[in-house]
Amino acid sequence: MKIPIQELPTNQLNALVREWSDALQKKQGQNLKLDLSRGKPSHAQLELSHKISNQPIENYFSSDGTDTRNYGNLTGIAEARALGAKILGTSPETTYAIGNSSLSLMHLTADTALQHGLWNDSRKWANSTTPKMITLVPGYDRHFTVCDSLGIEMVNVKIDAQGPDITKLESLVEDPSVKGIWCVPKYSNPTGITYSDKQVTELANLPNKAAAEDFVIFWDNAYAIHDIQFPGDELASIAEAAELVGTQDHVVQFASTSKVTFASGGIAFISSSQLILETLEKQISTFSIGSDKVNQLRHAQYLLENLDDHMNAHAELLAPKFSLVLKYLEDDLGGLEIANWTEPRGGYFISLDTMMPVADQVIELAKTAGLVLTPAGATYPAGTDEENTNIRIAPSFAEEDELKTAMEVLTLCARLITAREVINHRQ
Amino acid sequence: MKIPIQELPTNQLNALVREWSDALQKKQGQNLKLDLSRGKPSHAQLELSHKISNQPIENYFSSDGTDTRNYGNLTGIAEARALGAKILGTSPETTYAIGNSSLSLMHLTADTALQHGLWNDSRKWANSTTPKMITLVPGYDRHFTVCDSLGIEMVNVKIDAQGPDITKLESLVEDPSVKGIWCVPKYSNPTGITYSDKQVTELANLPNKAAAEDFVIFWDNAYAIHDIQFPGDELASIAEAAELVGTQDHVVQFASTSKVTFASGGIAFISSSQLILETLEKQISTFSIGSDKVNQLRHAQYLLENLDDHMNAHAELLAPKFSLVLKYLEDDLGGLEIANWTEPRGGYFISLDTMMPVADQVIELAKTAGLVLTPAGATYPAGTDEENTNIRIAPSFAEEDELKTAMEVLTLCARLITAREVINHRQ
Repeated sequence: MKIPIQELPTNQLNALVREWSDALQKKQGQNLKLDLSRGKPSHAQLELSHKISNQPIENYFSSDGTDTRNYGNLTGIAEARALGAKILGTSPETTYAIGNSSLSLMHLTADTALQHGLWNDSRKWANSTTPKMITLVPGYDRHFTVCDSLGIEMVNVKIDAQGPDITKLESLVEDPSVKGIWCVPKYSNPTGITYSDKQVTELANLPNKAAAEDFVIFWDNAYAIHDIQFPGDELASIAEAAELVGTQDHVVQFASTSKVTFASGGIAFISSSQLILETLEKQISTFSIGSDKVNQLRHAQYLLENLDDHMNAHAELLAPKFSLVLKYLEDDLGGLEIANWTEPRGGYFISLDTMMPVADQVIELAKTAGLVLTPAGATYPAGTDEENTNIRIAPSFAEEDELKTAMEVLTLCARLITAREVINHRQ
Repeated sequence: MKIPIQELPTNQLNALVREWSDALQKKQGQNLKLDLSRGKPSHAQLELSHKISNQPIENYFSSDGTDTRNYGNLTGIAEARALGAKILGTSPETTYAIGNSSLSLMHLTADTALQHGLWNDSRKWANSTTPKMITLVPGYDRHFTVCDSLGIEMVNVKIDAQGPDITKLESLVEDPSVKGIWCVPKYSNPTGITYSDKQVTELANLPNKAAAEDFVIFWDNAYAIHDIQFPGDELASIAEAAELVGTQDHVVQFASTSKVTFASGGIAFISSSQLILETLEKQISTFSIGSDKVNQLRHAQYLLENLDDHMNAHAELLAPKFSLVLKYLEDDLGGLEIANWTEPRGGYFISLDTMMPVADQVIELAKTAGLVLTPAGATYPAGTDEENTNIRIAPSFAEEDELKTAMEVLTLCARLITAREVINHRQ
């Protein structure tokens, strides 16, 4: 059936609503417990890193002479910095390995930019009464939480399959209270798109166009090496682009191994100019006596050797799940003009957009059949998706059987809600 | 020779100065590299925990059902909270295991008290234009750094062998801008003293005497289980004392395994009332996706079984070093009335106080012979020891031979500087 749902006569639609209601009722009776809400690695993915955590350590000294078991070395051992540089496509000199969470490093960077400034001079965001950051939407909820927690206002800019609209960004940064932008440049959360070379070049130049002299690009490269199709997307180097136009003191890059080894048991990376890194190191020295460098050693020794193989093994586990979600979307919704979706070549999410403003209803209905989805609006600041269309699908954690059932429920709910809406509109 | 140096005739003093100068000159020619500056575990101490880091993990699930490898569980796995409770003498319900650094938890608590308040109401330190904390001096430099970094002023109160002077504290907290106090209640850094039961009871009641309704006791129990003589000192429970007088919402306790397993590769603990813990958890959720719970599992599984034996093994390594330092102090300085020192039954430091205001000169002179000591004044806010007497000795890291040479240098410098001062004063 490939006729757009809007074009069906009402009696046919009523029949479909009855059929789909019956089907959903059956699902509701099955006491299902399904969850596509968070981008968590699956059990099988976690097992891939068993050899990292269980590898015996004979020599605790890193190549730079640090005893990884003792105090000291706030910026990370040489091997870990090399690993971060490999993941981010930067140099070890401009890459630090700190803690287990890139989110914590982003919070630290925003907090420091706000309260102290990143440049060892008088510039700081708190000099503005209403510092703001640009949020590309739909986007990553935890970026919004960082802004919320620090009292930073957010300015939304819609991101679509073509990536960020640079002209719009250039116009926004004419406001001197606009201090920064959040970017997930590769396999963007949740849309899965990767910025084009042109967009990277233009973004690198954005601080030059900004009225604020303390403008910062937060380059959250969470999925830098998370291809699931090969070849994966290629992301241009923002560090190189920034160097060319002299904005290296306004770009900070982040990554972690949370989705490479163990979520929250991995290591995190930050890369920027020497000036910014030194400011952050000074800030870190006020509350830290160093990261877990033993864990850095474990990670770096294994991953510097085996990163590609390791990520390929992840891809082998993830690819069938992404294919399965896309197959269900195509089979059950294709041609009906109920929704659009992305087909990312990597990352952790597929983004579904209903054509009518019914995302919240679809998510609510799915819940009645035991399927938990990312809450409606979660991909927008303040949880408010004004168009009410975006549904984020996170296929990684569920087992294949669960995923099939979950997709049956999801597409059923999307069809049912849309059909009912169409009927209502005709009355 | 047990005659106080002040009582020696000048000609004898001059002869001694020549003798000691010659001795020091020899040391200066030996190209020594000695360091008694930081309380770092020694190589042999770190080796004790090899079995923890190298223990194979078969089952990554904690007893509360958490997959330690994945996201989630901000407050720590059940086993780790039980370990924290065992170390702090609290209950697992009121004890969280978070991150690898108690210092980070202290910074977080102070920052949250300042910016948001700990009580889910309108109270917060930032409501005061000049929030202050009481610092017991000599004390731990990193507490001062936390205050400095947050713009919190410090009010010094001298702590001696009798512990904190509660009457003085009660008078200070009449000032509503005095918002908290830093305490290292057991084997205090650097004096090594442990608060008496009476002092603990009276401190627990301090928030009731405070004019500030948002007064907080920071109970940094860093050396809770770090006895080196047996029996060690007994510290009364401040949680119980606070419960009795209703101040449980004003006491926060901290500990870590940094000096139990691996410095900075361990796990950290915080214990307080439910109200405060929930506020902090909410705050943590803005920048963290959880601690390294695999490391928590490693630590807790081993230490819940073997904590006493493990700490006894540390004591066996530390006790000879402390004895050696004390022997040198007694043999080389005893009876000369050059300095006083503490004889702690645990912890990481021996605190030496020169009788004349010459600590800075002694430390400088020692440096010329290759001995690094904690910088003069480091045990005071802003690095200013107004009496210029305190020298912190950290004997843990050096090997026995190095420690002997270091103590020879230190006592030589103390004698030489003091003798010169006495001579100068007579001229």
